[in-house]
Amino acid sequence: MTATLAPSPTSSSQSASQLWTVGGLAEFMTALVGPGATTEGQVDTPVTAVSHPKYAADPNAMLVVLDEAIIPLLQQAVAQQGHPFYSVLTAEKITLPKGIALAQLKHPRPRVALGVLLKIFSTPPYVTQGIHPTAIVDPTTTLGSNVTIGAYTFVGPNCTLGDDVTLMPHVTLGANVAIGDDSWLYSGVRVADNCVLGKRVMLHHNVSIGADGFSYVTPEKGSVEAAKLGEKITAQNTTIHKIESLGNVILEDDVEVGANSTIDRANLGPTLVKKGTKIDNLVMIGHNNTLGENCLIAGQVGIAGSCVIGDRVVLGGQVGTADHLTLGDDAIVMAKSGLMRDVPASEIHFGTPAENQRDFFKKWASLGKVSALRATVRDLEKRLSDLEQATHTH
Amino acid sequence: MTATLAPSPTSSSQSASQLWTVGGLAEFMTALVGPGATTEGQVDTPVTAVSHPKYAADPNAMLVVLDEAIIPLLQQAVAQQGHPFYSVLTAEKITLPKGIALAQLKHPRPRVALGVLLKIFSTPPYVTQGIHPTAIVDPTTTLGSNVTIGAYTFVGPNCTLGDDVTLMPHVTLGANVAIGDDSWLYSGVRVADNCVLGKRVMLHHNVSIGADGFSYVTPEKGSVEAAKLGEKITAQNTTIHKIESLGNVILEDDVEVGANSTIDRANLGPTLVKKGTKIDNLVMIGHNNTLGENCLIAGQVGIAGSCVIGDRVVLGGQVGTADHLTLGDDAIVMAKSGLMRDVPASEIHFGTPAENQRDFFKKWASLGKVSALRATVRDLEKRLSDLEQATHTH
Amino acid sequence: MTATLAPSPTSSSQSASQLWTVGGLAEFMTALVGPGATTEGQVDTPVTAVSHPKYAADPNAMLVVLDEAIIPLLQQAVAQQGHPFYSVLTAEKITLPKGIALAQLKHPRPRVALGVLLKIFSTPPYVTQGIHPTAIVDPTTTLGSNVTIGAYTFVGPNCTLGDDVTLMPHVTLGANVAIGDDSWLYSGVRVADNCVLGKRVMLHHNVSIGADGFSYVTPEKGSVEAAKLGEKITAQNTTIHKIESLGNVILEDDVEVGANSTIDRANLGPTLVKKGTKIDNLVMIGHNNTLGENCLIAGQVGIAGSCVIGDRVVLGGQVGTADHLTLGDDAIVMAKSGLMRDVPASEIHFGTPAENQRDFFKKWASLGKVSALRATVRDLEKRLSDLEQATHTH
Repeated sequence: MTATLAPSPTSSSQSASQLWTVGGLAEFMTALVGPGATTEGQVDTPVTAVSHPKYAADPNAMLVVLDEAIIPLLQQAVAQQGHPFYSVLTAEKITLPKGIALAQLKHPRPRVALGVLLKIFSTPPYVTQGIHPTAIVDPTTTLGSNVTIGAYTFVGPNCTLGDDVTLMPHVTLGANVAIGDDSWLYSGVRVADNCVLGKRVMLHHNVSIGADGFSYVTPEKGSVEAAKLGEKITAQNTTIHKIESLGNVILEDDVEVGANSTIDRANLGPTLVKKGTKIDNLVMIGHNNTLGENCLIAGQVGIAGSCVIGDRVVLGGQVGTADHLTLGDDAIVMAKSGLMRDVPASEIHFGTPAENQRDFFKKWASLGKVSALRATVRDLEKRLSDLEQATHTH
Repeated sequence: MTATLAPSPTSSSQSASQLWTVGGLAEFMTALVGPGATTEGQVDTPVTAVSHPKYAADPNAMLVVLDEAIIPLLQQAVAQQGHPFYSVLTAEKITLPKGIALAQLKHPRPRVALGVLLKIFSTPPYVTQGIHPTAIVDPTTTLGSNVTIGAYTFVGPNCTLGDDVTLMPHVTLGANVAIGDDSWLYSGVRVADNCVLGKRVMLHHNVSIGADGFSYVTPEKGSVEAAKLGEKITAQNTTIHKIESLGNVILEDDVEVGANSTIDRANLGPTLVKKGTKIDNLVMIGHNNTLGENCLIAGQVGIAGSCVIGDRVVLGGQVGTADHLTLGDDAIVMAKSGLMRDVPASEIHFGTPAENQRDFFKKWASLGKVSALRATVRDLEKRLSDLEQATHTH
Repeated sequence: MTATLAPSPTSSSQSASQLWTVGGLAEFMTALVGPGATTEGQVDTPVTAVSHPKYAADPNAMLVVLDEAIIPLLQQAVAQQGHPFYSVLTAEKITLPKGIALAQLKHPRPRVALGVLLKIFSTPPYVTQGIHPTAIVDPTTTLGSNVTIGAYTFVGPNCTLGDDVTLMPHVTLGANVAIGDDSWLYSGVRVADNCVLGKRVMLHHNVSIGADGFSYVTPEKGSVEAAKLGEKITAQNTTIHKIESLGNVILEDDVEVGANSTIDRANLGPTLVKKGTKIDNLVMIGHNNTLGENCLIAGQVGIAGSCVIGDRVVLGGQVGTADHLTLGDDAIVMAKSGLMRDVPASEIHFGTPAENQRDFFKKWASLGKVSALRATVRDLEKRLSDLEQATHTH
């Protein structure tokens, strides 16, 4: 037996609740995300799916061409197939050669158009209907209408699940967990006692919400404390006391958390992620942090404890922050940076230790000039010696 | 239906096995962690909970004020409520304005006091009692007294679970796993065959213990080996053999491992974490490593294979180490560092490639001076040219 | 009750399907990985297991001595036990003192020999036989012969599992998942709808295959886009649209993925990992990436979206890449590097931002010379002033 390594069906017309045409899509986009979509060619060309040009097979699939470099491939495919593609989505500035497509949908922000298109033709993940007979739901828990709970999922006592909530198989909820309407928890998600999720929250595979914070103290001054005071390490962490986490985690409406990420509960009060913030895979949000609204936190970011992150902050992949930092609204921290200081609002920081990226790149560029500078100085030194010699002789 | 985004109940008086007063707490702290706690005001003020000042509601909750900056907020709250808070824990040096609290508990190491306070008022996570009817425990496995096994947890053959061990729902144990008394495994933890956990070991959500090491070899010299020898890559890894992991993982007493961290089994013998070491979330401990006692390993650290880490070593967040390194006792590696060399005992290292942090910061500071230095050299060059001109002319 | 902290049994003779001798092992190695193995001493010495010298107990276990530094320990052990070890595997160049072993197996690439030895004496993980009664397999799913499915595992509709596939307990497969012959999925693995796994694919604990890509767009220019155009952040991400992931993940034959790693599905078409590539723990492969054949991706690497990674590429631990990068065949990126640009074939890059490692280390070395250079320039300045003074006076 062999598993076929074919690409997945890229879409299914089942999910398209109506028959779409290129013209209809342009109108729908305008209604949804504002003006900009224009068309060329036959506006009544049907669209029943969407496809990457590399894997195009269905003639009714709209091809996505965000990059002009792909056009030669399209021409080649048309030549092989003997007929044009039916419809193509492109950036506004792209002019297609004749004979590639019957209709072209153009957009000044093609990724916005792509977002609409993929939304229309996406299909929800497979789930079993209703409460699976193997799901265990504590009788004290309250379920809204139309809740889906998958196989072998466990829901503890006194939880509250809103309407249209989906828990896929193998999810674990502790006690007193509240989940708002339309939220969706993928398989392997763990939500510990007392955590609170807003509406339309999406947690991907194996996310951990509400594990204990990494919080310890030594009876005597610990080695890190001692190092901060002096510089020499004399103290020894021979005894370590755990500081318990009595708080919880609150994820507000429209928060999304990527696969295998972790958000720890606070010592007291909540670790808080405000509405609309999106968190990628393998991210660690430590205890006591507050993240603002509509932040974008890329993969493998680590936010140590007790930080206050403003609204609309963007953290690139693998960024790490020290604890107790404040990041202003709209700040951007470039990927891989290690933050040791606060970031003012609307600034872009980079490096380890991070600083304003202008300063970092200026420094970094100057590093490349040290070798030449050393040569210059050696030359000056020689000329000066010669001159000294000459002057003295003179 | 709406989920309320209220903070969690910060504590519950159920967990306090006795009625506490401010004076009683001071005495208990002294007994537990040594002298230092002092009181002001009414020592018989009752304490039934502990709370972050920002979320204070229960008048009997002791407020935690580790930072003077919070005092104005307290004054505001008192004014709004029309009565003082009942009790407050502060650092020794903080003097509260009159009328804020009936009693003040002061401590020279307030985080130590906080640790005691949170321990007293913490409640254990929700678990079902005893062996859940859906738990599968191989009949050859031995259980101590008072073992708790949650729903849908699977325990393989020939395991040994000590007294008072708790396995929450959805845990997987392989064959021949040994777990010491009072250990606690959260949901989604996986422990592979032959691994050994000591007493009071705590593994948080989705921890992986005992997956195969990342260990391969190529029949001919591989590209990395070839690069080490010369510098040019000529070899090609066209065939890759896996080196199997026949060893196991041993976590000694009082080891704690954070959510979604992974500790791989050794090729032969154990990957060993000695007693009292605390590991944060999303940490990777590769195969064949030995970690000493009472280490603190912060979030997203990666320790490649076959390292020997001493006792009481502290690794900041996102630190990475090359393989086969030795870190001396009490060494500290600052967050985000990339270690390519050993670290002597009691030194603090930083940077990528890491070095003694004194050297790193000195270099880093000198980088900021290159621009000015270039200007100086340009100026010198001009002055020297002028002088050469003048001398020759002369 | 106490759990014993003894090392695991390092091997079991049960797995050795024949009785091995030192001479037989040498012949088998030659047959399997080519010539090189030689022997000294009694070639008929039996070998029933393999052991790390530090944990040697079974006299029939072959000891692995890859490093000469370990020989004094062996001598000590022999003195204590009163008899030599039976057999030892060493590097070709190692000459053992007399009386240590009855037979020595030498190999010019001892890790290759070790790989063969460990393969022979390894035992497969414990699994229950056949389809466990608590496993849920949708009736529309097709199973090959000799499939093993563990307790509480869930397999959705229209999946195809090849012959000799093993799913351990607590695995979740969505709909339309295809898995090739001899693949092995450990506990906690999640494979989402439409993903395709080749033959002999191995996924370790809690791996996530096919979660949504981290893909969003703002209707107006977002803050990162605006920053790229100018440098000042003026735009605000006040609305964020999700771009759905309609594609899938394809892992070709012989791909191995380490514990708690995540590979996200593409927006359209596949996120593709070609045959033979090995991925370590806690690695994040973002959406739309293509990884070539026989790559080695070490722990905690993060590959942002839409990269094209060549064949036999090696990425060291914690490497991060920007999106849309191209890495040529046989490229090596050293651990901890942050890639912002493409890497040509067969080059070794390092640093953040990464560049050819030769250039990086040259720059880094020059940084250490800035302090001395500043002193030299100060000295030149003084000498020049003196000379100017002298000349003018003159």
